[in-house]
This record gives sequence, structure tokens and C-alpha cells, in this order.
Amino acid sequence: MPRSFHISVPASSANIGPGYDVLGIGLALFLELDVTIDSKVASETNEDRNNCKLTYSEDSEGFATVPLKSDENLITRTALYVLRCNNIRSFPSGTKVHVKNPIPLGRGLGSSGAAVVAGVILGNEVGQLGFTKQRLLDYCLMIERHPDNITAAMMGGFVGSFLRDLTPAEIERREIPLSEVLPEPSGGEDTGLVPPLPPTDIGRHVKYNWNKDIKCIAIIPDFEVSTADSRGVLPQAYTSKDLVFNLQRLAVLTTALTQSPPNPDLIYPAMQDRVHQPYRKTLIPGLTEILSSVTPSTYPGLLGICLSGAGPTILALAIDNFEDIAQEIMNRFSKKQVTCRWKLLDLAYEGAQVSHT
Amino acid sequence: MPRSFHISVPASSANIGPGYDVLGIGLALFLELDVTIDSKVASETNEDRNNCKLTYSEDSEGFATVPLKSDENLITRTALYVLRCNNIRSFPSGTKVHVKNPIPLGRGLGSSGAAVVAGVILGNEVGQLGFTKQRLLDYCLMIERHPDNITAAMMGGFVGSFLRDLTPAEIERREIPLSEVLPEPSGGEDTGLVPPLPPTDIGRHVKYNWNKDIKCIAIIPDFEVSTADSRGVLPQAYTSKDLVFNLQRLAVLTTALTQSPPNPDLIYPAMQDRVHQPYRKTLIPGLTEILSSVTPSTYPGLLGICLSGAGPTILALAIDNFEDIAQEIMNRFSKKQVTCRWKLLDLAYEGAQVSHT
Repeated sequence: MPRSFHISVPASSANIGPGYDVLGIGLALFLELDVTIDSKVASETNEDRNNCKLTYSEDSEGFATVPLKSDENLITRTALYVLRCNNIRSFPSGTKVHVKNPIPLGRGLGSSGAAVVAGVILGNEVGQLGFTKQRLLDYCLMIERHPDNITAAMMGGFVGSFLRDLTPAEIERREIPLSEVLPEPSGGEDTGLVPPLPPTDIGRHVKYNWNKDIKCIAIIPDFEVSTADSRGVLPQAYTSKDLVFNLQRLAVLTTALTQSPPNPDLIYPAMQDRVHQPYRKTLIPGLTEILSSVTPSTYPGLLGICLSGAGPTILALAIDNFEDIAQEIMNRFSKKQVTCRWKLLDLAYEGAQVSHT
Repeated sequence: MPRSFHISVPASSANIGPGYDVLGIGLALFLELDVTIDSKVASETNEDRNNCKLTYSEDSEGFATVPLKSDENLITRTALYVLRCNNIRSFPSGTKVHVKNPIPLGRGLGSSGAAVVAGVILGNEVGQLGFTKQRLLDYCLMIERHPDNITAAMMGGFVGSFLRDLTPAEIERREIPLSEVLPEPSGGEDTGLVPPLPPTDIGRHVKYNWNKDIKCIAIIPDFEVSTADSRGVLPQAYTSKDLVFNLQRLAVLTTALTQSPPNPDLIYPAMQDRVHQPYRKTLIPGLTEILSSVTPSTYPGLLGICLSGAGPTILALAIDNFEDIAQEIMNRFSKKQVTCRWKLLDLAYEGAQVSHT
């Protein structure tokens, strides 16, 4: 019997304000996969070593450059990891995956987190493994160790998360490199290795009751910040003062964003950060001015501004005046010769979804 | 017309789990002041330079050693500061303040925070200044710069707080030392100086919707930890890893304690800390064992354990098995030759209260 299903996974914004590596928001901008499995068309898919014919819509972000071999593409490579953990060596013959990706790449909007979540769900569906979302999070966290984007993309809404302490045996398991489990992107045959199952319940999270009047304005500059650069500028150590600064604001922010009406006098200062934003100013022209000069008193309705992930996207939270706020931030970027586009986004409250068609 | 009123201010626990300098809980154990102002008995109060006859109940903590001169005692000294900021030089003649203090001193249960809050409220009532609690917090924060105990004692419940950034002018105002405003504790005449009013809205806070099934077990060793010692053992700098460890758990904990039923699998790991507890183990014999060995699996109903403030009091949160949990922790202390008492406490949901009699 041919099968088909649809997977959608939201973009996400992480590092919200003081919540470095902690807070994430699922955004209503969806990576979409249309999947069909039909053994009658096996001849069309056996060009790929793992029986998966992968295509992208032409309007997808990264259309021209994204790898289409199933063991090179992050989505299908992740699916293969899940399958092999469960001793299934490849996709069923006749698997076709068509991807639509409107999430900009390398901009701090969780494109790779969405790809990992989509891949884990793809593996679960293709292999008919029947895992819960909570269990699928464990698989995601074996590949991508930062829980903020992953949890937001999988669970949706406004979430805070941590990784529990692993036992020494679990750490050993976790440290098996993905390259031993999967063929290298450069090629190589299936090693036949069955990787150990991930430890259970690695990630813990809570979902906050986000005030639905609050919308997300994403201002997206037309350049990428590499993860290596964005991590490389961060310091090795922090003062107790900076640490307490972020702890105090984080404790207030999560609850302040659930209150109705939202209070800009509480939220705006609670979105300040001393852990990553000050160091990333060198990578993002205009950031200093944007973070210090666009305020609720100049733009009523604005609640707070921060970097989205490691940037360069700016995330502004607001209940009104969306276009003016976006325009002001774009103007400040344009003074630094940076062009941008912007999107007004609701939260993706439900996170990743599968529908069988 | 003689006047009389009653002030009650709760004890508090600060630094809850990962919430160093951030989270506070008001505890239903109250510092109480009975105040009468009757000019007909002026002769009884003019022994004190500021017209305030101060007495303590014999069962008060610190009864034998607490200073009774109004410019030496922390409660009345703080009241005098508030009065002088508002250009009132002393208490009205015939002021009597009778204190009952069941809050152990120097144990991490917010005894000095409660004294500061009581003093500020005393000044407000004596001077009939009519300030709101939010404004009175500003006065408290001029004296005691750590908002966690102060906010919990004033506002009650489970709170997270931060101090907003002050402007340069405000910082200058704030830095006028208290000793120039008030007579030195060792004596000295009223300088006549009218101190500047505190900046407004220094402290920001949110109150979390604590699950009322959760009770606080305070295990109180019979020794004090000095603030100087407890601050002195802390490091100058923290790794990014330890910082993120606390940020992640803090983000989860505040909301986890509002959920019903409370989930020990979420709360227990979210109460771990790497910012102050590991360094204070040297000051508190047995702490390491207590924090690592008394768990929800050995004591069902237990949710989490942490130091209360800088210790030595241990705070355990639980919904059941209170006596067994307390006894186990006391046993572990007794192996280190530390004797303890314990109290089962509800939250003080309303914080500081004044009633006119």
C-alpha cells in the first residue's frame, strides 16, 4: 500500500533576551515535507543509496545549494540516524520527500533546528516507530545539543528547557560520533553499525502561557553569521555581576510575557542581556544602536528587542506599531549598508505536526 | 490622640535553587511590631535620643543581644532613615515599639530583610507618609541592595526580582552612605542632613502563582554563617557552562512550581545550582551529602532541596512526608555534630501587613 503524509515544523527564535541557551519561541513560519512511499516507483528512488528521492520547491531558502543526497542532507541524514538506531538500514524503496523551506538559512531563525526535528519525525514516520514527541526530542538532542531551538520547534509556543545530568554510561553512549553511525557526507558505504538508542528524557522543558496579544517582528538582514564566529566571540568566563544580571531578568521575563496586559516597563528592562549580545555587536553592524535606541517610549506598543539566536536577525516583541518598529530597525541597519526584509509572525503554538493524507 | 498599630513582616528564603540573588519566598513566620504613640507618656520615651522606647518579648530570637537604642537597632534605625528623607527628624514623642521576633538570626531566613521592611513600614506609619508598598521597596533597596529577601518579605509569596539600571545621577544619590544620614550606631548627634529621596521604582518583580500544595520544610542548624564568610567563598568568575546550567534550570523552576500536580522529575533537577551552593559546602558540614542523597525516590513527596539564603538553613520543598524528610536531614547534620531544629512552613502569600488597632 502506498503511504503519504505531511510534516510541518516551525521556525524558532532562541536566546530570548537574558535566556541564552534557554528560552525559545516557535514561530509560525513552517518547514514542510510532503512524503510518499510507493514501492511501485522504486526505480525512481534507487538512484539514491538509501532509496530516498529528495526534492525542494524552487522558492525554498537555499534551493540552489542544499544537498539532495539523503546521507548529505540534514533532514534525511537525521531520519537515517533514527532508522539505524532502530536497526532499519535505509528508507523503504520508493520514498519521495518534497521539501518547502521558507525559513532563511543561517540567520538565527532555527533553520537547522527545524531540519533536525523534521528529520527525526521523518524517521519515526517512515519506520513506523511510534515514538512520542518527548522521546523524539531525545533523538534530536543527540544531534543538536542546544535544547532551545529544538524544543521550541518540536513543542511549539514559548518554552524554557534544560538537559538533565547524564550518567557516566549515558555520556559514553552519547559521545559516539554521528559519523560512525552514518556514512560521511562525502560518501562511503553503510557501516552496518546499529547505534545505541539515546538515553531517555534527556531534555526537560516547560511551556509558558504566552500572552497571545504579543506578536513577533523578525527583521532579517541579508547576511549570515556563522555559528563558529558567533560562538568564537563569546568570553570564557563571566563575572558574578553579569551572571546575576541575566538570572534576575530571566526570572522575571518568562512570567512577564504571560501577563495581561503586557507591561513594557517590566518586559523591556527584563529583555536586557549581558551574556551574548554585547559580544556579538562586532559581528552585527548597528546592533548597539538598535538595542539601545528603539524603546517603548519612542514606539508605543513595543515591549522588547533582542537578537534572535546568534543573529543577525533582530526579534522585536510588540502589541502594536509593527510596521513602524520594523521600519525604524531596517533604517538603522541601512545606515550601516545592511539591507533587510521583515516578517510579522505569530507563535506556532502547537510545534511540529504530522498529518496523514 | 494616641495612635496604635501592628506591623507583621514574614521571614523569607532567598537564592532558591538556581535563583541566586533572584528568587525569594515569603514564609509564614512573622516578625511583629506593636506600636503606640501617646504624647502623654513622653516622659517614658525621652530617654531615647529619638523619642522611641524599644522593647522585645523575652522569647524573641536574639533577645539578649539586640540593641535597644533607636539609632542602633536595625528596625528603628531604618524607620529614622525614612523619616529624615522626608524631613522628619525623629519619632513623635511617646512612641513605643514592642517587637516579637521568632525569625532565627543569621541562619538564612531573612531576619535582617524582615527588619529593614518592618523599619521602612514603621517610618511610613509613624510619619503618616502614605507611601505604597512599591515605593517603600525603593527605601528598602537603598539600605539592602539584594532584592530577593526584601521583595519576598514586602510582597509575600514566591517572587522573582531585579534592580533596574540606575541613571548616573541616581547612582550618585544612591551612594550617599547611610552613616551620613543617620547618627552612627556608636552615637553622635543628628547631623540635620535631609537625605535625598530614593529613585523611584528601583525594584521590579513578578509574583509566581505558587502551587499551594507545596510546603516549605526549614531545617535550621544551631550555628550562624556570617555574610562576609558566605560571600567570601564565592568565585570571582564563572564558566559559560555553569552560567547556562543555572539559567536553564531557573527558567524551568519558576513555572514548574506553579504546575498542578507538581512534578518531582522536573522540579528536583531544576533546583540544582552551580553558582553558590558548591562553594558554600566548606562552611556547612554535611551539605554535600544532604544535597546529593536525599531525593524524591527515597522520600516520596519531596520535590527539591536547596540552601536557604546563604545558609546554614536547608530548605526542602515537599507535598508529603514532611517529618521523615526533616528527620533524615537532621540525622545527616548530626553525623557532623551539628544539631538542628526544624519548622514546617506555609508561604506568607500577602507579605508585610499593617493593621490599625
